[in-house]
Parts: sequence; C-alpha cells; structure tokens
Amino acid sequence: MATRKDLANAIRALSMDAVQKANSGHPGAPMGMAEIAEVLWNHHLRHNPTNPNWADRDRFVLSNGHGSMLIYSLLHLTGYDLPMDEIKTFRQLHSKCAGHPEYSYAPGIETTTGPLGQGITNAVGFAMAEKLLADQFNKPGHDIVDHYTYCFLGDGCMMEGVSHEACALAGTWGLGKLVAFWDDNGISIDGHIEGWYTDDTAKRFEAYGWHVQSVDGHDSAAIDAAVKAAKAVTDKPSLICCKTIIGMGSPNKSGSHDCHGSALGLEEVAATRANIGWPHEPFVIPADVYAGWDQKAKGASTEAAWNEKFAAYAAAFPAEAAEFKRRMAGDLPANWKEATDAFIAATNEKAEGVATRKASQNAITALAPLLPEFLGGSADLTGSNLTAAASFKHVSGKEPGNYISYGVREFGMYAIMNGMALHGGLIPFGGTFHMFSDYAKSALRMAALMKQRTIAVLSHDSIGQGEDGPTHQPIENTSGLRYIPNMDVWRPADSVETAISWVAAVERKDGPSSLVLSRQNVPGIKHDAKDFDLIRKGGYVFSDVAGKADVIIIANGSELDLAIKAAAELNAAGTKVRVVSMPSTNVFDRQDQAYKDSVLTAGVKRVAVEAAHPDFWRKYVGLEGAVVGIATFGESAPGGVLMKHFGFTVENVVATVKSVL
Amino acid sequence: MATRKDLANAIRALSMDAVQKANSGHPGAPMGMAEIAEVLWNHHLRHNPTNPNWADRDRFVLSNGHGSMLIYSLLHLTGYDLPMDEIKTFRQLHSKCAGHPEYSYAPGIETTTGPLGQGITNAVGFAMAEKLLADQFNKPGHDIVDHYTYCFLGDGCMMEGVSHEACALAGTWGLGKLVAFWDDNGISIDGHIEGWYTDDTAKRFEAYGWHVQSVDGHDSAAIDAAVKAAKAVTDKPSLICCKTIIGMGSPNKSGSHDCHGSALGLEEVAATRANIGWPHEPFVIPADVYAGWDQKAKGASTEAAWNEKFAAYAAAFPAEAAEFKRRMAGDLPANWKEATDAFIAATNEKAEGVATRKASQNAITALAPLLPEFLGGSADLTGSNLTAAASFKHVSGKEPGNYISYGVREFGMYAIMNGMALHGGLIPFGGTFHMFSDYAKSALRMAALMKQRTIAVLSHDSIGQGEDGPTHQPIENTSGLRYIPNMDVWRPADSVETAISWVAAVERKDGPSSLVLSRQNVPGIKHDAKDFDLIRKGGYVFSDVAGKADVIIIANGSELDLAIKAAAELNAAGTKVRVVSMPSTNVFDRQDQAYKDSVLTAGVKRVAVEAAHPDFWRKYVGLEGAVVGIATFGESAPGGVLMKHFGFTVENVVATVKSVL
Repeated sequence: MATRKDLANAIRALSMDAVQKANSGHPGAPMGMAEIAEVLWNHHLRHNPTNPNWADRDRFVLSNGHGSMLIYSLLHLTGYDLPMDEIKTFRQLHSKCAGHPEYSYAPGIETTTGPLGQGITNAVGFAMAEKLLADQFNKPGHDIVDHYTYCFLGDGCMMEGVSHEACALAGTWGLGKLVAFWDDNGISIDGHIEGWYTDDTAKRFEAYGWHVQSVDGHDSAAIDAAVKAAKAVTDKPSLICCKTIIGMGSPNKSGSHDCHGSALGLEEVAATRANIGWPHEPFVIPADVYAGWDQKAKGASTEAAWNEKFAAYAAAFPAEAAEFKRRMAGDLPANWKEATDAFIAATNEKAEGVATRKASQNAITALAPLLPEFLGGSADLTGSNLTAAASFKHVSGKEPGNYISYGVREFGMYAIMNGMALHGGLIPFGGTFHMFSDYAKSALRMAALMKQRTIAVLSHDSIGQGEDGPTHQPIENTSGLRYIPNMDVWRPADSVETAISWVAAVERKDGPSSLVLSRQNVPGIKHDAKDFDLIRKGGYVFSDVAGKADVIIIANGSELDLAIKAAAELNAAGTKVRVVSMPSTNVFDRQDQAYKDSVLTAGVKRVAVEAAHPDFWRKYVGLEGAVVGIATFGESAPGGVLMKHFGFTVENVVATVKSVL
Repeated sequence: MATRKDLANAIRALSMDAVQKANSGHPGAPMGMAEIAEVLWNHHLRHNPTNPNWADRDRFVLSNGHGSMLIYSLLHLTGYDLPMDEIKTFRQLHSKCAGHPEYSYAPGIETTTGPLGQGITNAVGFAMAEKLLADQFNKPGHDIVDHYTYCFLGDGCMMEGVSHEACALAGTWGLGKLVAFWDDNGISIDGHIEGWYTDDTAKRFEAYGWHVQSVDGHDSAAIDAAVKAAKAVTDKPSLICCKTIIGMGSPNKSGSHDCHGSALGLEEVAATRANIGWPHEPFVIPADVYAGWDQKAKGASTEAAWNEKFAAYAAAFPAEAAEFKRRMAGDLPANWKEATDAFIAATNEKAEGVATRKASQNAITALAPLLPEFLGGSADLTGSNLTAAASFKHVSGKEPGNYISYGVREFGMYAIMNGMALHGGLIPFGGTFHMFSDYAKSALRMAALMKQRTIAVLSHDSIGQGEDGPTHQPIENTSGLRYIPNMDVWRPADSVETAISWVAAVERKDGPSSLVLSRQNVPGIKHDAKDFDLIRKGGYVFSDVAGKADVIIIANGSELDLAIKAAAELNAAGTKVRVVSMPSTNVFDRQDQAYKDSVLTAGVKRVAVEAAHPDFWRKYVGLEGAVVGIATFGESAPGGVLMKHFGFTVENVVATVKSVL
C-alpha cells in the first residue's frame, strides 16, 4: 500500500515531469504544497470526482494559480475526467491543462487563477455565497447548503492589495467555513523575500479577526490537526500558515527561486526522483498510489448522502427545493419575461426625466421582487450609485440579507462577486463610481474571461460628474471596458434604455455587463414600443428622415439629447439627419450585417457624440466622419458648466456635422 | 490672542462655508481633523509658505483628498499664495481650489489625491525618495536631505488594498520619517462602519512593523506628544490613530455620514457657528486668528537656515551640490545628448535580434551610468521584465542603492513611483507583466494627470507571452493605456526603436511613458541614421515604394516583421506597399499635419497589424481599411503557436491587404 509520502510524491513527480515536458511552468509550489494538498484532498475535501457540479461540494481555490500542476495532479489522481494524456499536453494549445487553471477547461476548476490575490478573493466570494444561500434555503434539520471553501495561497497573494480587501471583509463577516492555507516558503520571483515582504502575516490576519494557526507544511499530522481545529472554529475564517520549502524534494533547487517558475532540468528531475524515492517513469503512477488517491467511491457516497438529504428537504419544502434548483442552474423565474416586459412598458409610459443612475435604481427596485437571487452592493457609494432598493436588507454575515456594503474596496468587491457568480445561486451586482472601475479592471476582465454573470453599476460616467474634478471623471474608461473581450458595456440614454440594459444584463448568462450611468438628469423620452426590441440590439435608428439621410449622428447616454436637438436644428435647415442611439457598441457589433447596415447605412457620413475619448468612435465614423468627444482630462466645476466648456453643446454638434458635409 | 481652539475653528468655518457656497463638497473630514491639522501645521511641519518648492521642506499629503477644504484652509491660513477669493470659488471652473487637491493648481499641494489609498502610497514614495537621496547626497555633518513626510488618511484609504501594499513595504523599509495620521471617525459613506470595516488597524500596522499610537484626535496636547514620540522612533514609520468625530462642531450632523459628502445646509451652518463660538461672517478670519496661523516668517527663517547649511555643503562638496540642484530641477546631465546618440548609433550598428524586453535591458544598462537619478524596480518580476542592470544595487531601506524589488505590488509600485517623481531628484521606472498594468491602471493615470516622469516597463505584451495563457496575455490593454490623456505608450519593434523609446521616455519631463515590450525575440534591423529622428516622431515610413503606394501597412512591436515580409511578397507580385512603423501612436498624433500626411498619405488604403484589439486602429485605417488584430482572449500554448493560431502570419497579412484592394 502506498504511504502518505508516496501519495504526496505523486504530485511532485507529475508536476516536475509535466513542467519539464512543456519546458515551461512552475514546479516549486506544487512540490512544496504536496503534503498539504494530500491532507486536504484525501481527508477533508467533500467532493465527487464523477460529478464536479454537485451543488453542495466543498469549493477549492488555488489562488497561487501558477502552481497549476498541483490542481491538475489532484484532479487526475482523485479521479476526475482528466486523463494522463491531458497532463502530458500541459501548456499546449487546446489542452485542458492550460498554463494557469482555467475555469471550464478542466473539470473541477472552480475559478480561473493566476492574477495574484484574486483567487483568495474569489474564495471569500464562494464562502459568502454559501452563507447567504444557507441563510435563505436551510431549514431546521435540513442543511442542504453546508460546505467549506478551501483556498491555497502564496506570498504573492499575500502581498497583493486585494488580499487585504477580501480578507478584512471576510473577518467582518466571520466566515467560519473559509479555510485558507498560506504557502509560507519565503521565496518569490525576485528571491528571498526579506527585502520586500516582512509582514507578521499571522498578526495581520488576527487583526482582521481570523483564527490563525502555524504548522510545518510538510508534517501531515500537524496539517490534519490544524484543519480539524479550523473547522471547529465556526465564527471566524481560518488561516493556516504552513511553513514549507519551495520545490521540496529537489536536492539542489528546493528552497530557492530557481524552482519557482521554470523546469528543473532533466538532470535535476532525475536527482529529485532519486531523492524522493520515486523510481517510476514520467507520467507513470503505480496502481497502489492511484488507489491511495482515488476519491470516486467516497465522493459518490458523499454526494448520495446529500442527495438523500435534499430529497427529504424537497419532500418537506417542495417550492424551496425547486427554487434552489432553479437558482443553482442560473435560470430566471418563469414570470420573468412577462414581468420585465410590463416594467419596460410602464417605464416608457412614465417617460421620467431622471439621471440614468436613478433610472437604474428604479430598475433594481422593479427587478428585486422577481429575483430572490439578486444580490446588491456598493463599494461604499450606495447613496451615489443608487444601488439599493427599499426592499433590500443589508447583510454582513450576521443576519440574512441581500445587500452588501463592501466598504471602499472596488477590486475586492468585483472579485468577490466573481466568486459568488461561480458558486451559483446568486446574481451579484455592485456599484462604484465609473472612474474607480480602474481599481477593479482586472476583476471585471476575469468575469469576462470566465463568462460569469456579474453586473457592474458604474455611475458618474463622465465630466458630467462635475465638481469632484478630473480624478473622478472617466474619459478613457468606457472604451477601455468595451475593449475587454466578452464584456457588454451599456451606456443608456434614458429611463427606458436603462431598464432594458438591466434586463439584458440579467438575462446574459455567459458574461458580465457594465452599466455606465449618468450622475445628472437626462430628459425623459417616450418610445414607440417597437424600439424595445431594437434597444436590445445595442444600437438602433432613434429618428430618421424621409429618403436618404445626409448624415447620421450616433450618440448615447447623456449626449443622445444633444444629438436629438442638433438633428432637429439641422433638419429644419434642410440637412437630413438620422439619429442613431447606441447604448451598447458591444451588443450592436454582434448583430448581423444586414441589421447593422440598416442602422449605419454605407456611404452616409457620420458624427459620433460621447463625452469620452473620441478615438474609439472612428470604428463607426471612419476617417471622413467626426467625433464630438474629449481627449483631455476634465476639470472641477458644476457638470453643466463642464459639458459646455468641453464642447458638449447643440451648437458644437451642429457645427461638427456641418464640418463633415 | 486667538486660542488654539479658535485656530482649529477657522478650519471648520472655512470648510463648512466654502462647501456651503459651492453646495458641493465634504465638510466632515476637515471639521473632524481640525485639531490634528493645527498641531501639525503650526508646530511640526517645516515648510515655507512663500517658497512652496523649497527642496528640503517636509511633505504633506492629504490622502483623504475629498477633505480638500482642510488643505486649502491650511494653505490660506499659513500664508501660501492662495487668497480668500480662491477659497470662495471652491469647486468652480479654473479655481485653484478644485474639488480635490490637484497638483500644480494651488501652491503647496504636493500630490493630487481623491482616489483613495493612493495618497498614503504617494507618501511612502516621498519618504522612500527622501531616504534614497539622503543616502546619496548627505555627508557627515551635512544633512541637506532631511525632512519628514506627513500624511492624513481616512477609513477609505485604510480599506483600499493599495494601502496594504504601500504600508507593508514602508514597514520593511523602516521609514522612520514617515508619520501618518489616521482619521478614525468610524464613518464612511454607507454609514457607521461596523458592517464592513472592523479591522484592528493598530494591530495591522504593528504587523507591518510600524510604530503605532492611539490618541484623542481632538486633544491637541495629546496629538502634539504623539507627533514628538513618532519622530523619536527613527527606524519605523509611525501611525497615529486619532479617534475623531466627523464634522466636529456641527451640533446635529457631527458623528454621522450626513456631514461626510454634502453641505451642512444654511441652518446647520448657523447652528455650528453658534456651537463652536465663531461669530464671524463667512470667509472672514479675524486678524488674531490669521496671526496665530501665519507661518511665513518662521518658514522663511527655517528655509534660510537650510540655505546656509546648503551653502556650507556646496563649499565643501561643490560637485555634489551642483548635482543635487540639477537632479531636483529634473534636468538631464550635460553629456546626455551626446551619450545617448552614441548609444543609439551603437545599438543600430549591432542590430541585434533580441526580445524588446532584452533590448530594454540593454538600454537601461547603457543609461544607468549617465543617470544617477535612475531608480529601477519591478513588482517581483525582475528576471522576466529585465529591469535590472548589472550596475544596480538593490535597496530596501537599509543600505543605499538604486534598484527596488517592490514585491508583488503593481499598484503600490506605480503609486509609490508617483510620489518619488513628485518629490524630485529621481527618475523612477518599474516593471511588471503588461497584463498586470490592469492592477495599477489608476496609478498610471494619476502620473499622467499630474504630468510626472515615471516609466512603466511592461513586458510580455500580447499573446506572444505564450504558455501562461489568457490571464497573462494583454489584448485590450495597450489601447487602454493609449487612451489615457497625456500617457505616451511605446511599443517598439526592434532594439533601435527600443533604445529611442527609452531616451524619449527619460527626456519627457511632463508626463509618464509606458514601454510595451515583447517576451519573444524580434529580428534585428539596421536603420538608416535618418530614421533615428523619425522614430522619435512616433511613426515613420519604414520602407517605401517608387511613386504612389497602393496600400500602407502600419505595424509595430513584434508585428513589424510580418509587415515587412508581407510587403516584400506583395511588392514582388506588383502591389506597391509602403510600410509604416508606428511605435507610439500618442507621439505620432502630436506631430504636425504635414508630417502625418507624409506618412499616412490621404486616399491610400491602409492595413494595420498589431497583436491586440483591432478596433483601436480604425482611427488610422478608417472603414475602408483592415486590421489584423485579436478581439478575443488568448490561449495557453507556446507563443509562436499562438501567433499563428490567431492569424499573425505573413500569409494572413498578405491576404488582408489583398482584401482591401
């Protein structure tokens, strides 16, 4: 029978061999964390390799994602559908074993990691989701939501600022089912960390209200005891500081950054084999080692026990059980279409002239009763982003609720939301000033990469922000978000477009949306009902002329009003102007060519108007058209003054149109 | 004679009155920190209101920049050239008193703050700069660099992740001359902070190795004693936790978020006047209060004493004194032009085929001996970014040096570099993977807004990054940086363009540069010497045809080679192709129209090639041209495989050119 050491060494061998074969990758972390991984995955993690989507599985996050061979080894060894052939193609095109763990590539990868600090932050999101769903669904005697979230993280994650944001909030929430293992190996890429990382990390986490333990990360019994102790503390998240040797097993490179991020080299691989007593060929795992790792039977019975529990729940609470299934599947409620159609129609009927952030709040208020999975929040700007509905109840881990004050933690918020969306059962949205989406750019990108339904409510969308000045006025940011693959950016012009943006964002199961909203009021517009479907296409003919237009003005957000007024003036003077409202360029770009041509007719000169960097719009107006935009930083003054100062006036739009004709 | 309380109340009155007049702003923090400010500015801060640029002044940073009326009040009261008329135009267009403190608007503003957490991070940069310069210039008995950096920060700064990055590193460095005052008022915008901010902040900072004290923030004597104690600890940065009441003085709104971010209202302003015993009209300061605040005479004599000290230094060390002046003025050394011309010529002579990150290291190595103000660093990717030269000496606060391992702290690094650049005397550059400029976007933007000379070395610039996969492969990021007003982005194609990019970045006194560099090798190119000036223009005709071109291929970075080869193939087949190399669109856009037209001749079809989001290039190719780019996320595979997979081949460029003709 394989010893515990053999089991750990299987990780070492697979990791060094796969990295060696790819001649690229990070053997150090998997080799250093092999004992920790064995203890956790073989003795604590509740998972079913044959059903990686079991709803109540424990979640595992490898925040130090560069150590990807660790998780691939674990998935392969414990019995997930990740055959050795995939391990052998580590880091090659179309392999499930990508350089970093990619969500949806290999089964059992709960989140994509690699950008440091975000994995532990996702993990906080998983644990918060577990708590929120447990509060909503569990009944006395029926704990159908009851799982742990485990996370491995390294020194890099500890240094990243977002780890502070997430771990502090986890402390406030008292997330007792979150257990993190810090790979305390004293090495980062630049070498021994004394010159740049000297935190007393245990003390830091105690300051956040965590339960902290320190162990020898190569002592399986000590690790096991620490995990048990961590689970016994139910009102605090736990950090287990694991003193390890990076690249453990490599006789000449362990304990040094030489084994962090590149292959050991054939000679050292051979020396390591001898050193750890692993005589087997690369990618050969003896049967007894496989047997020691195999979690398929245990996993199946663990899930079966839960299935029984869930059946009992369903018998006692059939509506709740059905609702739980719906929510974990990410499906919208049955009355969604009817109710949202009615909401859009009512919004149009009212045609209120309000700021689009206020129109957004109206949408949130209308959608909240339909969507118990809706989870609102803001990075400490609730009253400005208008992200709260009256029906929401604040939650901070103590009592149930559905609205989170995340604190001034933009990056943390969006990366936590990614974890919640990945967990399932929730549709998280969170607000900040559009300007501070800069702080969180990487988390927004990760949502797009992982195809997760999160919604960023980004208010105060341009120089109309006003008095706060250039530090608070986005110029380049809207286009920056539009360029993220798979991100849908909406900048609606009125309350109807805002309502439809919200509906589209909620319906979008395979990616995030950013709602870019005005601080200032915009006029109310009464649409023809046929517009509703067209708005969903991202861009549409708002108003047209008889016959061929001389020019098309494309606008969105608060500048649509300028376009409408300029068109009226120009039309009266004999220039035939079509106005196109373009709330979402991303969505418009996905339409078929015939539709796009019907909106932006070939050969007609175009002028775009947006209080943002003009260059983005060249993709629609070409070299012959013109853009009314702003390519400099803003200023501090009342928003209306600034709009005028920077040329966002009917006069300037009219003059610009004339300049291209 | 005015009492200490009167002096503090002058801040309260000015702040609430200016916010009231603007009907916009944040009275809470200035009113809550009035005593702290009075103690610091009247009794500790070494500054000269009549010369805000005195080299050895103490630096003061208001990290909670929304409380801008606090610093405007202090500048006005202590005698800076900030007359009451400016205070009265708070938050109006062209006022020196912008909504947030803007560097270069009002005298005495050391850095622009508002984006939370970055002020304290700048402050760490100021203190690191002081230490580095002191190490370089001071001689026994001649401490010409010897000043403190003081910083006010609020709960928001404490929650932001970047405060973790900066303050942890400050602890490692043991920055004894950094003293921070935390406005511990228990309030943030969403209300009382118990639901989202429960850190034991004192313990957290102790874990970083700081000296921490706690005082009543309204007890002037206690604050004074704490500042003295902080200064007495010379090997640790100091945090003074000041328990305060937000909006102190307002009888009905103090202690609540009602006074955080909006005017108190006329009635409450009147009630506050009565409550604090301030009978004076708005914007009227009694003479005795002015007298109590006036720091002009004291400041002049403080500076005069330093001037004497500097004169003695100059007498003993004339070369060092001249060098200190040059560096603080930001001027380049006298031999700069000659030496860099020689370096460029030598690079061209060699025409090495290396990765541009390696060419960048060659440039750093060549420039370092010319530039003692050069301060290198990396966010823990020194060996990948190739940011170190052999001549550099690592520094972490203990021994002198000029290369910093910042740890895995991208945002912290660039915001620290902003503080260093603002301090003067250093030209900081720092490296990370281009992908992780996302983490630091806001700091890069702040450098651009403040017109600071910082240089971001961003290697691994696209899918050529290879095996690390989509989390490490920039797609939208280069264009995202290009859209930041006043940011110069360079993506050089070979070693000569890389050398020239570096020279341009160093010579650029009024803004930051981002150098976007390949991981993989690019061919060496031998240029005609006339190209050297043209490269400096950001874009130039790399190769041309006789007569009018049929098509122009615009390319940069690693894709210039594809353009050259495609052009050769097309030219051989009879299509006349001009190749334009465009290392910097930002710089090219600043050229005069005639030059731009000579490069991109009107009416000639264009094709752009860049391994990045294609839409950016429509500004040059228009609707009739085409772009070989990538609009999706990358994959994990060797870089060469990916380039081919995503269509970055000569064949595809040729086919794309044919498609537009």
